[in-house]
Amino acid sequence: MIAEIITIGDELLIGQVIDTNSAFIAKKLNKIGVSIHQITSIQDDKSHILKALEEAEQRVDIIILTGGLGPTKDDITKKTIAEYFDDSLVLNADVLENIEQIWNQNVGSKLLQVNKDQALVPSKSQALMNSLGTAPGMWMEKEEKVFISLPGVPYEMEALIVDEVVPKLKRKYNCPYILHKTLLVYNIGESALAERIESWEDNLPSQIKLAYLPSLGLMRLRLSTKGYDAKILNQEVQEQIDKVIPLIENEFAGIEDEEGSVEIIIAKQLTKTGQTLAIAESCTGGAVAERFTVNPGASAYFKGGLVTYSTQSKINVLKVSEETINQYSVVSAQVAEAMAQNAQQLFQSDYAVATTGNAGPEKGDSDADVGTVFVAVATKEAVYSQEFNFGNLRIKVINRGVNKALEMLLKEIFKN
Amino acid sequence: MIAEIITIGDELLIGQVIDTNSAFIAKKLNKIGVSIHQITSIQDDKSHILKALEEAEQRVDIIILTGGLGPTKDDITKKTIAEYFDDSLVLNADVLENIEQIWNQNVGSKLLQVNKDQALVPSKSQALMNSLGTAPGMWMEKEEKVFISLPGVPYEMEALIVDEVVPKLKRKYNCPYILHKTLLVYNIGESALAERIESWEDNLPSQIKLAYLPSLGLMRLRLSTKGYDAKILNQEVQEQIDKVIPLIENEFAGIEDEEGSVEIIIAKQLTKTGQTLAIAESCTGGAVAERFTVNPGASAYFKGGLVTYSTQSKINVLKVSEETINQYSVVSAQVAEAMAQNAQQLFQSDYAVATTGNAGPEKGDSDADVGTVFVAVATKEAVYSQEFNFGNLRIKVINRGVNKALEMLLKEIFKN
Repeated sequence: MIAEIITIGDELLIGQVIDTNSAFIAKKLNKIGVSIHQITSIQDDKSHILKALEEAEQRVDIIILTGGLGPTKDDITKKTIAEYFDDSLVLNADVLENIEQIWNQNVGSKLLQVNKDQALVPSKSQALMNSLGTAPGMWMEKEEKVFISLPGVPYEMEALIVDEVVPKLKRKYNCPYILHKTLLVYNIGESALAERIESWEDNLPSQIKLAYLPSLGLMRLRLSTKGYDAKILNQEVQEQIDKVIPLIENEFAGIEDEEGSVEIIIAKQLTKTGQTLAIAESCTGGAVAERFTVNPGASAYFKGGLVTYSTQSKINVLKVSEETINQYSVVSAQVAEAMAQNAQQLFQSDYAVATTGNAGPEKGDSDADVGTVFVAVATKEAVYSQEFNFGNLRIKVINRGVNKALEMLLKEIFKN
Repeated sequence: MIAEIITIGDELLIGQVIDTNSAFIAKKLNKIGVSIHQITSIQDDKSHILKALEEAEQRVDIIILTGGLGPTKDDITKKTIAEYFDDSLVLNADVLENIEQIWNQNVGSKLLQVNKDQALVPSKSQALMNSLGTAPGMWMEKEEKVFISLPGVPYEMEALIVDEVVPKLKRKYNCPYILHKTLLVYNIGESALAERIESWEDNLPSQIKLAYLPSLGLMRLRLSTKGYDAKILNQEVQEQIDKVIPLIENEFAGIEDEEGSVEIIIAKQLTKTGQTLAIAESCTGGAVAERFTVNPGASAYFKGGLVTYSTQSKINVLKVSEETINQYSVVSAQVAEAMAQNAQQLFQSDYAVATTGNAGPEKGDSDADVGTVFVAVATKEAVYSQEFNFGNLRIKVINRGVNKALEMLLKEIFKN
């Protein structure tokens, strides 16, 4: 089964909002064997929506629309869908009841007419109950094709996908299982890696697809396949992984969790061993801590973090000695190591990681070149650091710093 | 002039990577009067790329492709573009020189053949020099239509857009200027706001488009228009803004900066007044600090932050008294206020904001319900807090907590 996601909203086309919905939908649908053929972002405009529906219907089996279902005048998806299906809008009593319930729980004041009107749905549609908002989802079928319309608000859309759309699609289709496994490789460029694993890549079975996904300081090597027997697929892919790991040599860092990334591997390991983590950040400004705390269960291992952005706060809060700073500058191995060590002691954690550097665009409290970053790792027994230069683009310096801190932590945690 | 962005890469369609490139390109092109008609994400697949090019050529004047230009076997964009233009690839000496230079600066080892091959470009194309990577951009023209192909690595793409694509488009076209102004409105739902401003909305001049952009706890109201005289456009939109602000009443919070958001308004004001900020976070886990530090110039006003995730760290690091915690629990107004006040004193800042709550999915160190969050603001003279319940979705609780912290800070800073 193949699907297309159509995201509707001028805010996407002027760059005001980044489309995160599509990635969420793609991941969930992949798991039940539906592959996404195309993602199309279009305007809040009747003729554009009609054209996109028509084209998508030619291309795929399942069409998922998000956005344009709000109560205001710029939300025109529902009317347009009714027109596409030569249908009219009728009041759905169950949806109205749901709207009233949500309104009473969350707003309290008298229900407005525009919100009552959200209970109008195309007569040929099945309503999908939105437990978190007033806009219902809709499911329509037309000659073996399925059309699903969902609100654009991410958490409402997410709940509808998980609770309604995925179960309904599973009941309707018997789809092949899609499997992705991703190897994490550090400190090697795309082309050098390709050269190292060339013979293996040339002999990959045709049903296994390979992709290189370079990001800052970290390369992901993704193997994908699909079929009806999940066990056989896993075996086939594992066989190839076992062959390629020795070729990648020491630069192989681990296998990415299906749900996420390096920080999830670290989190799982720390939770398993009952060990804990503290973080002291300067140039990465809280971004390392945020990578951990955004995921559930962080309180099991994450003791806390410090963002000591100013020199004064490194001295006052993190107790880095003024002499060390004066002698070596705030961007130095000595300060990075003191930050890591003091964070480890302050939070009484098993591990601590620290960053100090200059992310630019201008020189800050130190004479260090823009792009210079020191990352230090401390355990109860030892502390060490490395120096990097990540170039002169601020966002790149920060992200590479975050990735490097995660990498060093991963390696330390899995050292034994 | 209208454009379409085509992003190429299986990683987008399986949800492994979120497309952030399109929003960046859309913003930059909007500024020179090019509106984005559609964004299309497609597979690394020859026939799909050819089909997408063909369809986009019917729809728009300018087609911008990103992705698929790497040196490895899964990168097929360049060959496919050559086929589309009935062209062949030829070695571009300038590009090769650029590749050699970047390679020597960043890698050092011997240049690989696959990277030398990146200097092959379609003979009918103009190469766009990539100063940050080995994949060149390409510019092609065909009967008044422009095709631009860029690498998918965000910072390489961004530099090419700013340094090459925008100047070339400006030279080629005389486009209307596109203006967006966005009002920030707090604590009012989409439909209630629509009702409040209905008479104004009904009388909006037809050339000014209005959009409601609800996000967690914050509503953006965007006015858009285009024309050839930037000054007149600004006047026309400002006139409407002056009319609508009184209708929004006290819920109006400010006008969004063109580049960003609430945190940028706060950052600008603090920088202007020479005042400073500290942040103490529990449930938001570093996300508030990260919103500030990701932008350049944060060191001018951001003294530092603390992520005191565990109760122990609230006591040891942030010096919240154990008695307060025992008496009121870690998720309480008293602890939030102590966190804000102690952060303000520890970092010696003018303002501090603190969050403590339970983001779920399970109850943590406190008996507070999942979703309960306290946000406190401290100045040198005063401290106060508010209690919220943000529901039981972790990501929603965190994001609403972040937005609420920013809102309270914004209001405090602009109080006078």
